[in-house]
Amino acid sequence: MLRVGQRYVRDDRTLTHLCLVSRALGAESIYLEDVEKDILGTLQGVNRTWGGGFSAVLGEPWRKVIRDAKKEGRAVVHLTMYGMPLQEKVEELRRQSKMLIVVGGPKVPGKVYHEADYNIAVTSQPHSEIAALAIVLHEVQGGEELKRSFGKSRLRILPSETGKRVVES
Amino acid sequence: MLRVGQRYVRDDRTLTHLCLVSRALGAESIYLEDVEKDILGTLQGVNRTWGGGFSAVLGEPWRKVIRDAKKEGRAVVHLTMYGMPLQEKVEELRRQSKMLIVVGGPKVPGKVYHEADYNIAVTSQPHSEIAALAIVLHEVQGGEELKRSFGKSRLRILPSETGKRVVES
Repeated sequence: MLRVGQRYVRDDRTLTHLCLVSRALGAESIYLEDVEKDILGTLQGVNRTWGGGFSAVLGEPWRKVIRDAKKEGRAVVHLTMYGMPLQEKVEELRRQSKMLIVVGGPKVPGKVYHEADYNIAVTSQPHSEIAALAIVLHEVQGGEELKRSFGKSRLRILPSETGKRVVES
Repeated sequence: MLRVGQRYVRDDRTLTHLCLVSRALGAESIYLEDVEKDILGTLQGVNRTWGGGFSAVLGEPWRKVIRDAKKEGRAVVHLTMYGMPLQEKVEELRRQSKMLIVVGGPKVPGKVYHEADYNIAVTSQPHSEIAALAIVLHEVQGGEELKRSFGKSRLRILPSETGKRVVES
């Protein structure tokens, strides 16, 4: 995951959501240009409590992140309401073995549209980059991400019909 | 859609995302207990520009909203990381013709778990109510919501491989 064009402060909670969604739905790491708050601490805490090794990388320029991803053979998928409908491209995306998903904030540079291998829209309606990311991660992994195990963790939820069941390990 | 247990101010942007995701992914309306900012104005503006008749209803107590939904024959689906995995319940949910989806904020009352017909988890990992809502709306509608038309609107996006194409009508 790469986050481009953030509006600091105002987007702070949005950023936390983007990080946690990326982690929960199977991404390895998120590249952030810069952040206000201690997002690294938050993510370390979540990994410690709930498992997995998701990481955030701060301060790398977006061009470098995209260039490096391409060298690694990753398809660069930019999410934007102006792009091609997800449902028309999803088969093609599923054939990619590695991916860098780019989520643009309100100030996303126009060049991102040209650097990306795909510009993908989750509806052509305005809504939420968090929701778009979730649906794309869900679709490209065919729902398998929902069954993922996060390995060793301090807490684990036992799914329940009506309450909250949490076990410590 | 029903939003319960909001934390005002701090959740303000989260709330805007929840409203816009509900609208873009096919919900009719959202019930909010109370709001800080002019969310009604925002939604009217979005409808005017991008079409559709999505609405927000303010100030109805959550118990009344759930009770009325049940009288209308709606299945009440509460989204929580402590619930049953979506993938185990999705077939059952798809058979429901009408639904009230309940999204709890951090202060969701425990009774909501018991009033709901279903408590559903999108992974048992902490992430985002915006992402959980998006994936549930997507799954229960089998992706059909992505093709939805919003009727008459001032602006319309023409999907594009690399740029931004918007037409006025």
